Amino acid sequence: MPAPTQLSAQPAVDWLKANEKQSVARLIDWLKIPSVSTDPAYRDACAKAGEWAAVKLREAGLNADLLPTGTKDKPGHPIVLATTPAVHDPKATGPHILFYGHYDVQPADPLNLWDSPPFEPVIRPKDGDVGERLVARGAVDDKGQVASYLEALLAWKHTGGPVAAGLKVTVLLEGEEESGSVNLEKFIIDHKDRLKPCTVCLISDTDMFDRNTPAITYGVRGLSYNEVTLHASNQDLHSGLWGGRCPNPISELTKVLAQLWDKDYRVTIPGFYDSVRDIQPAERESWKRLGFDANQALAGIGLAPAADIGEKGFNALERQWARPTAELNGIVGGYIGAGAKTVIPSHASAKVSFRLVADQDPAKIRDAFFKWCNDRTPPGCRWEFHDHSGGFPVTVPTSSPALDACRRALKRASGKQAVLMKTGGSIPVGGLLKSHLGIDTIFMGFGLDDDRIHSPNEKFELDCFRLACRTHAIAMEELARGA
Amino acid sequence: MPAPTQLSAQPAVDWLKANEKQSVARLIDWLKIPSVSTDPAYRDACAKAGEWAAVKLREAGLNADLLPTGTKDKPGHPIVLATTPAVHDPKATGPHILFYGHYDVQPADPLNLWDSPPFEPVIRPKDGDVGERLVARGAVDDKGQVASYLEALLAWKHTGGPVAAGLKVTVLLEGEEESGSVNLEKFIIDHKDRLKPCTVCLISDTDMFDRNTPAITYGVRGLSYNEVTLHASNQDLHSGLWGGRCPNPISELTKVLAQLWDKDYRVTIPGFYDSVRDIQPAERESWKRLGFDANQALAGIGLAPAADIGEKGFNALERQWARPTAELNGIVGGYIGAGAKTVIPSHASAKVSFRLVADQDPAKIRDAFFKWCNDRTPPGCRWEFHDHSGGFPVTVPTSSPALDACRRALKRASGKQAVLMKTGGSIPVGGLLKSHLGIDTIFMGFGLDDDRIHSPNEKFELDCFRLACRTHAIAMEELARGA
Repeated sequence: MPAPTQLSAQPAVDWLKANEKQSVARLIDWLKIPSVSTDPAYRDACAKAGEWAAVKLREAGLNADLLPTGTKDKPGHPIVLATTPAVHDPKATGPHILFYGHYDVQPADPLNLWDSPPFEPVIRPKDGDVGERLVARGAVDDKGQVASYLEALLAWKHTGGPVAAGLKVTVLLEGEEESGSVNLEKFIIDHKDRLKPCTVCLISDTDMFDRNTPAITYGVRGLSYNEVTLHASNQDLHSGLWGGRCPNPISELTKVLAQLWDKDYRVTIPGFYDSVRDIQPAERESWKRLGFDANQALAGIGLAPAADIGEKGFNALERQWARPTAELNGIVGGYIGAGAKTVIPSHASAKVSFRLVADQDPAKIRDAFFKWCNDRTPPGCRWEFHDHSGGFPVTVPTSSPALDACRRALKRASGKQAVLMKTGGSIPVGGLLKSHLGIDTIFMGFGLDDDRIHSPNEKFELDCFRLACRTHAIAMEELARGA
Repeated sequence: MPAPTQLSAQPAVDWLKANEKQSVARLIDWLKIPSVSTDPAYRDACAKAGEWAAVKLREAGLNADLLPTGTKDKPGHPIVLATTPAVHDPKATGPHILFYGHYDVQPADPLNLWDSPPFEPVIRPKDGDVGERLVARGAVDDKGQVASYLEALLAWKHTGGPVAAGLKVTVLLEGEEESGSVNLEKFIIDHKDRLKPCTVCLISDTDMFDRNTPAITYGVRGLSYNEVTLHASNQDLHSGLWGGRCPNPISELTKVLAQLWDKDYRVTIPGFYDSVRDIQPAERESWKRLGFDANQALAGIGLAPAADIGEKGFNALERQWARPTAELNGIVGGYIGAGAKTVIPSHASAKVSFRLVADQDPAKIRDAFFKWCNDRTPPGCRWEFHDHSGGFPVTVPTSSPALDACRRALKRASGKQAVLMKTGGSIPVGGLLKSHLGIDTIFMGFGLDDDRIHSPNEKFELDCFRLACRTHAIAMEELARGA
């Protein structure tokens, strides 16, 4: 490792500038692989997307393995684990950066709402505030953001810079983030020897504060995602013959779930708020200074200011960043085709998720929810419960040498001061890395609020992608220098 | 028309006995045609099922037409209209019987719950109380019941009996009963000249009281079937970024629909009960004497006595026959595939139907429901409403020469006294025939409570089918003789 004064990311930054088109072309290749982890039909595509990343990491000079997960009966999607040669060099000093990301993507449905096929990436020109952008499922969540540090590593490799040769970097890319990271915890435990030496984790799976303001995210919400099915009769019934005579599971499920919130949009499950940390006055003040415009955000999704609803006593940003919620993510029962069918179905289901904040425990919230359902079992009905996954909320210290290094990198790459913010999303790996390896995570992301992640026409603006590539190249210098 | 004393259905009954196997085989042929009227994919199959019936009516000696319905832009399924030669014979006297039935069937989904494919009819052997039976979609609702009078007409034709030659019979079979009979009213008005001479309508689309007790149904409930969609954002949202910040249309729809019933299972829409006729004490007493066992009925669909829920103050039979209800027949929103997707969808929908009793008006109930929804529009959301169809409740006089003739026919065919009952189902044509043609309808059906109509594994027991064929053959004699 050369002396810090000798380090310079400039050649890597220049290389990125000169190779912009190729960087985007490589990302497009990756986006064409439909790695939907939640749907077994895409199993091969997931493996292919992981292999694609391993090949690129090898081109950047890392040793990369594609490691299986899960069991023989219930195989998972493979995890890419790659390391720079310095990791095995006893003379190497300095930080050991762990990049975590995921190569799997959300399901693309509803397909009819995409303007172009989700796995045929297209570049669309600037349109008002929205910059030139790459449109595809996974464009920003998370392939595009992962690609930005793959490109940064490639830039260092091609420019022969000292960081590439001497910096300790481990890259861990999983293929199950969008399906609950069900095999990740075991993988971290099983590969503790290789992961434990890491000193800080960088994750690029969050947003900038806005188009002009880069950000580091210091808090993510936790998640408890469940499915409940209410069963009544052992067969579908004719609603003329049985209507008014026996439980209708759709009606009864609806009546139970409607009780999840009180009139102030507070969750009614007993004990739900017991472990919620209050927002500190200083934190509240700092968020106010960000000048977030809730009405403008609502306008962006076609809603009027009246739609600014949520837990009473908190503004939109506070509700998103620091308050837990209960959401119905899906509901289905009875006849959902065209026209009419006079049926009372045998059962109805809902997907019910809770976003959690420190120090709520996903398992305890799940248990409390299932008990709450059981306490409201409609006459003659029975419940079936499924826990689809969860994750702890994470809050990381806002001052550390590594975080400062990242802020300097963002400043150099963008010319702007990065703000410190939180997100309402969940990145459970942060909690796992802290509890199993004792390392903090810095969430440095380059998405935008209107990137339509998890929705049709997901996009990643090319300015954001280029900023991400540049920032990661510089961050390696800054981290090597001072973290 | 010969003198009543010369009339005898016996040769026709004997022919039916000798041709049992062929009668069932003919019905099987018809059941193989997947005439699902609500789904445009089955348009050709519907036409084919109508044509099949027209051919059979011609074989029975009737003139049969397959008449188009709907408009060029919105074509309907054809209506079969057939008449015996006597209809055009100025010398013919006696009653003019209108048989109404439908050749369309309910959608077969969920397909995975059928033990055999819905359009590949199979005969299953007796199993406990359940007799030998034909299993297929439409087996009893309504192809099997229509086939019973097609067979009776054929029997008269083959035995050269005087009724076939001299009785005025019109047969009207529509192909849209399961999709709201949207073109039937216009058809009745347009063909008033041909239908107006009918003196009584016979419909075979209801149940017996039980396996051992034939019945005539003197009241059917009305129906108002609607679909409501609640729209929020103009795109699907990530529930981490937006959860707690804006309306979730699934949650909000659930909260609105849950208010449809009070704790006593009474519908809360203002004015809903205004036009409901009270059950008369004598009627209540006569129903009590039927000895209906609500718990046994619930056990038949896998439910415990605790599932005997519904409007407070009424027993199960009263609720089914004489009280209106609100039912959710379908609900859908967000992600309904396997696993988890953290989405807040842009909209959520429900199919909401009301069963009505005299003198509720379907259009008024629909309007009151939509207004009730509008009065509860969640902040930032908007409704989209669809009326899928409706029909008036019908109650017919329990004493008339025609009804007496049918009771005599049932007695002769079964050896048992038929009871007078109501049904919770809806047969809107009864109301249309009364208001446009001034004729009463006799609902003489041969289904059973456990026939699983509208459900997987729909069946028609062969004893019921044979009784239906026999009864219709004898009813023609009895009606000719005395109605």
